[in-house]
Amino acid sequence: MTAFSFELLATDGGARRGQIATPRGTIRTPAFMPVGTGGTVKAMYMDQVRALGADIILGNTYHLMLRPGAERVARLGGLHEFARWPLPILTDSGGFQVMSLAALRKITEKGVTFRSHVDGAVHEMSPERSIEIQGLLGSDIQMQLDECVALPASRDEIERAMELSLRWAERCRAAFGEQPGRAMFGIVQGGDVSALRERSAQALAAMGLKGYAVGGLAVGEPQAVMLDMLEATCPLLPQDRPRYLMGVGTPDDIVKAVARGIDMFDCVMPTRAGRHGLAYTRRGKINLKNARHAEDPRPLDAESDCPAARDYSRAYLHHLVKSGESLGGMLLTWNNLAYYQSLMQGLRDAIEAGRFADHAAECSEGWARGDIAAR
Amino acid sequence: MTAFSFELLATDGGARRGQIATPRGTIRTPAFMPVGTGGTVKAMYMDQVRALGADIILGNTYHLMLRPGAERVARLGGLHEFARWPLPILTDSGGFQVMSLAALRKITEKGVTFRSHVDGAVHEMSPERSIEIQGLLGSDIQMQLDECVALPASRDEIERAMELSLRWAERCRAAFGEQPGRAMFGIVQGGDVSALRERSAQALAAMGLKGYAVGGLAVGEPQAVMLDMLEATCPLLPQDRPRYLMGVGTPDDIVKAVARGIDMFDCVMPTRAGRHGLAYTRRGKINLKNARHAEDPRPLDAESDCPAARDYSRAYLHHLVKSGESLGGMLLTWNNLAYYQSLMQGLRDAIEAGRFADHAAECSEGWARGDIAAR
Repeated sequence: MTAFSFELLATDGGARRGQIATPRGTIRTPAFMPVGTGGTVKAMYMDQVRALGADIILGNTYHLMLRPGAERVARLGGLHEFARWPLPILTDSGGFQVMSLAALRKITEKGVTFRSHVDGAVHEMSPERSIEIQGLLGSDIQMQLDECVALPASRDEIERAMELSLRWAERCRAAFGEQPGRAMFGIVQGGDVSALRERSAQALAAMGLKGYAVGGLAVGEPQAVMLDMLEATCPLLPQDRPRYLMGVGTPDDIVKAVARGIDMFDCVMPTRAGRHGLAYTRRGKINLKNARHAEDPRPLDAESDCPAARDYSRAYLHHLVKSGESLGGMLLTWNNLAYYQSLMQGLRDAIEAGRFADHAAECSEGWARGDIAAR
Repeated sequence: MTAFSFELLATDGGARRGQIATPRGTIRTPAFMPVGTGGTVKAMYMDQVRALGADIILGNTYHLMLRPGAERVARLGGLHEFARWPLPILTDSGGFQVMSLAALRKITEKGVTFRSHVDGAVHEMSPERSIEIQGLLGSDIQMQLDECVALPASRDEIERAMELSLRWAERCRAAFGEQPGRAMFGIVQGGDVSALRERSAQALAAMGLKGYAVGGLAVGEPQAVMLDMLEATCPLLPQDRPRYLMGVGTPDDIVKAVARGIDMFDCVMPTRAGRHGLAYTRRGKINLKNARHAEDPRPLDAESDCPAARDYSRAYLHHLVKSGESLGGMLLTWNNLAYYQSLMQGLRDAIEAGRFADHAAECSEGWARGDIAAR
């Protein structure tokens, strides 16, 4: 069996081109992980997701533990079998969604208690239970339970949550134990305070984990703050371990984070935006609800390899979105995930070719140029 | 260019195996037409619909005239181009949906006036305007405007609407004129009164139309009444013209109507039921919401050619449906349309082989046997 491992293949400035080996397949980095919240990448067949070049998807522990339940997924053969995704899966710890979705949250040293947003049932989740659930799901890359504070927050509050997250990281590491084919990642916290980010990164690095995530960013702060925090954090993380920026982000966020040494990303933007009539393209974000598209026979991007971008008229997409037809969300999600995967492929190629900075500038120019002129 | 024509290839009792030739392709009958309401077969890619064996889909004039509008569709190259369906399309007249969906309906000899359910705008639709709209859409098989009364209704009311529909048939025929590659079908009305059905069928047959529909059935009456009306109607329609039973129906309705000489069907059941957690199979209708499926790793039908029926566990489908995930509707719609198309293929094969009655009995036995036992 292949042991979980990370290999750095090339660097270009701060940008890294690597690959993560797992028993379920290799993940080319920088990688974007489509979000498969409740065992489905919304409005997509898994075959389509794979065909776009995704090497890994993300599953949400919070959603899956509530419905259908981690023990049930385990009895059904694990999440890969259940959702028909044979390649690697990363699961979050459930902590972030507990904070954003559940009611009556209560955090203690022991863990978090909350009410399900589905049926109101009370659940307890400790660091140990989070790792147990992720194991039941069969996750290849598991995340420590952490506490993610919303910004802005006081330094004391940020520091308290960061220190708690470090103690939980140790407990998760102990609960995870030795699993050669899988990995448990720690999560750097510390809000928008560089000194706290540094303390968190150093303490986690000292634990010798298989990978490191940066959490608690893209939660409302300006992009410059996020980038400052990455600049404070990444140099303190081991070079030979993958780095994952959680929940990020726009194409521009991703390019700038790759420039600062991030290897992995996940975000609901391409899928959620697709269900709301928005298309990501080489020339920026296009709102298909806009009446300018109503009689436009041109596709979103005639040069794309993705049928959703290349073969359907903007007029048709506009009609589907305005009429609330599910095919609209299906096609725009498909387009958006195709764009995100092509963005990642472009970044990987550019790093290998030693032209990352030029490529990043070309991406920005394309977005700034904006959409083709209306007819 | 191929002229619109119908050829009867085989009969077996009352059941007919035929083919309709059109410039856009051949329609094998008995045929089931998936309903593509507003230019999309809901939750399906057109490529999937075609791959299931559909030779023709139905478009709804009422929906399309309101949104995106018939003139707009025409400017965009017609409905085939707009919706990316290159094969034949049949459009209804819009009359049925005006009666069921629009507000402030007013019927006069001239036509019908109504308010759009989308934006409240007042529209007028005469027989001539209905044909004009269907022409703008580029429809291959167009339907006359008719008045369809809800049952139960008084004989006088049924007769009045039937006679009005006959006068509108003449006006539609005149408006349609001569279009060799396309057809305009008349619609037999007459409610649940055999004598009125006979009068309608004879009057329409005398017009020498290219095809005949039977309308105003499956609107709440018992199946036996529907079948009685078909028995009163079909013998009076020309043998050498296709016959279309509008809006019907369940698999059992379809088999029994084919036995009585019907060639074409459309119905929202497979698509609508799919979005509501219901699967049509060889062994009857299965409600995926039922908890019995929650841990069942077996597929809907291991012997099906359709990936949705064959490759996904009932447990996963149950989870998707219970969670309101769009993939649930996508997979069940796919399964249901696959089942309907395989049903039609089975009927066509049985008629050719001269074993229609046996095949119909086998279908009924399968539905009566019911779903596989729970584990």
